[in-house]
Amino acid sequence: MNTLTLNAPYLVFLGDANDLIMAKVAKGIAHWRPEKCVAQLRLAGAKADLGLPDMSVQEAAAAGAKTFVVGLAPIGGTLPKEWIGLLIEAMEAGLDIASGLHMRLVDIPELVAAAERTGQTLYDVRIPKGEMVCGTGLPRSGKRLLSVGTDCCVGKMFTTLAIHKEMAQRGMNATFRATGQTGILIEGNGVPVDAVVSDFIAGMVEVLSPDNTADHWDIIEGQGSLFHPAYAGVSLGLLHGAQADVLIVCHEAGRVQMDSMDGYLVPELDKVIETNLAMGAVTNPNIRLGGIALNTVNLTHEDALKEIARVEAKFGVPVVDPVRTGVASIVDNLETL
Amino acid sequence: MNTLTLNAPYLVFLGDANDLIMAKVAKGIAHWRPEKCVAQLRLAGAKADLGLPDMSVQEAAAAGAKTFVVGLAPIGGTLPKEWIGLLIEAMEAGLDIASGLHMRLVDIPELVAAAERTGQTLYDVRIPKGEMVCGTGLPRSGKRLLSVGTDCCVGKMFTTLAIHKEMAQRGMNATFRATGQTGILIEGNGVPVDAVVSDFIAGMVEVLSPDNTADHWDIIEGQGSLFHPAYAGVSLGLLHGAQADVLIVCHEAGRVQMDSMDGYLVPELDKVIETNLAMGAVTNPNIRLGGIALNTVNLTHEDALKEIARVEAKFGVPVVDPVRTGVASIVDNLETL
Repeated sequence: MNTLTLNAPYLVFLGDANDLIMAKVAKGIAHWRPEKCVAQLRLAGAKADLGLPDMSVQEAAAAGAKTFVVGLAPIGGTLPKEWIGLLIEAMEAGLDIASGLHMRLVDIPELVAAAERTGQTLYDVRIPKGEMVCGTGLPRSGKRLLSVGTDCCVGKMFTTLAIHKEMAQRGMNATFRATGQTGILIEGNGVPVDAVVSDFIAGMVEVLSPDNTADHWDIIEGQGSLFHPAYAGVSLGLLHGAQADVLIVCHEAGRVQMDSMDGYLVPELDKVIETNLAMGAVTNPNIRLGGIALNTVNLTHEDALKEIARVEAKFGVPVVDPVRTGVASIVDNLETL
Repeated sequence: MNTLTLNAPYLVFLGDANDLIMAKVAKGIAHWRPEKCVAQLRLAGAKADLGLPDMSVQEAAAAGAKTFVVGLAPIGGTLPKEWIGLLIEAMEAGLDIASGLHMRLVDIPELVAAAERTGQTLYDVRIPKGEMVCGTGLPRSGKRLLSVGTDCCVGKMFTTLAIHKEMAQRGMNATFRATGQTGILIEGNGVPVDAVVSDFIAGMVEVLSPDNTADHWDIIEGQGSLFHPAYAGVSLGLLHGAQADVLIVCHEAGRVQMDSMDGYLVPELDKVIETNLAMGAVTNPNIRLGGIALNTVNLTHEDALKEIARVEAKFGVPVVDPVRTGVASIVDNLETL
């Protein structure tokens, strides 16, 4: 197996987070996979609250927790030294540790020693696992949806998680396929595509989304944008490896300047749609646009609905804001495929 | 410094190669950088010959050699055990070791121990060196040319080496920028782009090709193809990071089926040109097509010249076969820029 797989359920660690903005990962896990969360663990003074029972590592282990998930990103992405003792205690109680921090658990000798002693596993979800393989481009059975973006941070993960949830609620046969650290911690499985050596991007997405039954949907989390000057290579490898039948294009309404990229404007939706369909057709000639997800967080409710209607009229596909309107109209459309 | 840089000149090791097909890397170094080659070292029975003086490691060191370059790829990419003693002897004589084999020198404990003892360096040119950085997309001074392809193995490295040589002979200010293992061993410097973690492809190409004087050309070796189902991510990151002013599109005349890719046809030249220009414009809106390099190895001389003329008439840019016709007409055109 060369995807990362965490053991569920989790004890979600909130550290000393004052709010759920600091504990974004924890919030995502509790929101999308409540059934995987046994308890939360907060340090003295922490004000963030997931609404889960507060437990010590020993209590959580007794309640069945298998993995201690570091659910926040301290400034700089490093693990505060004061937490190391707690992580060791968690392993001694029988829990694995999972983290998406830049600082790797496996680079902290005390943690490595404790993992060896206890037989527990350290999961750095930014480190790809197992043998890397090159893409074959061969067709696979089952159906695939991929979210792509006009930019980074426009809602690609949220959109795919929402579509997966809607499908699951309707009893459709679907799996969320995580490609980034937060998605992997939420799903408990995935491939951190941007951390894979570049020769293997497409190949590892093929591994992440293998042959399946004809009625099955893989709902694949997108990364970056074909128009992003730093990350487009990741996006194209992901698009080719996914062999998507359906693309959902994600865009933040009103964003003009690309995220953290001086001098780069967000590309036009029609250009992004056209380019993704053209490049995606290299590995799946039947690729089609299945909808547009607009992030309208910066618009009033009235303006948001107007913008959604305008874009829907222009492109002739279901247009949603996954937060504001839900994704039902997109899934209605997919049910007919 | 986070590009790989080897110390020249070299002692080129041919092992037990029977011909220069087996010793392709050695042949490339001796052909393109004869001034960097002090001598060759051949094991008993080897029939391959670069026409360089035969020397032992001690003789080569006395003659000024700084690096022992493994110039052949044994089947499977592993280093035969019998060679380890010789590599240690080379380090003891004061030479660094450079290799592009899949099996890493740094994974062979005897070599690592000898490197520590002698103070020499082991260079695995498949391993990126130093801190990896993300792309900025910011414009850089100087001029840049990138070779792109309709497929893998169509002559992208050869084309850029030939253009660089032609420019150097004309006294133009130009540097060859290697992005693959063979190119790096030839030039003695570069970034193995396909081995870089995918988040950093564009960024590391920016590092490889920094700001320069206005008259300077970076001649950047391309990799893969935007239409290759396994490697297109590498190609797009390279295209964006290069911020090329000029593309040279490389194609093998008459190739129908993509290299090692079942079910994939080589894309049409016009589509490849159009797509590379459109995607390249993301980081350099002034990108233009500077010529086409046709690999006509499988055509008769007469058919090759006809095909070159046909393609030239169709696209209106200089078309060459770097082997058959040289690249002068492309460089004539570049001199006017």
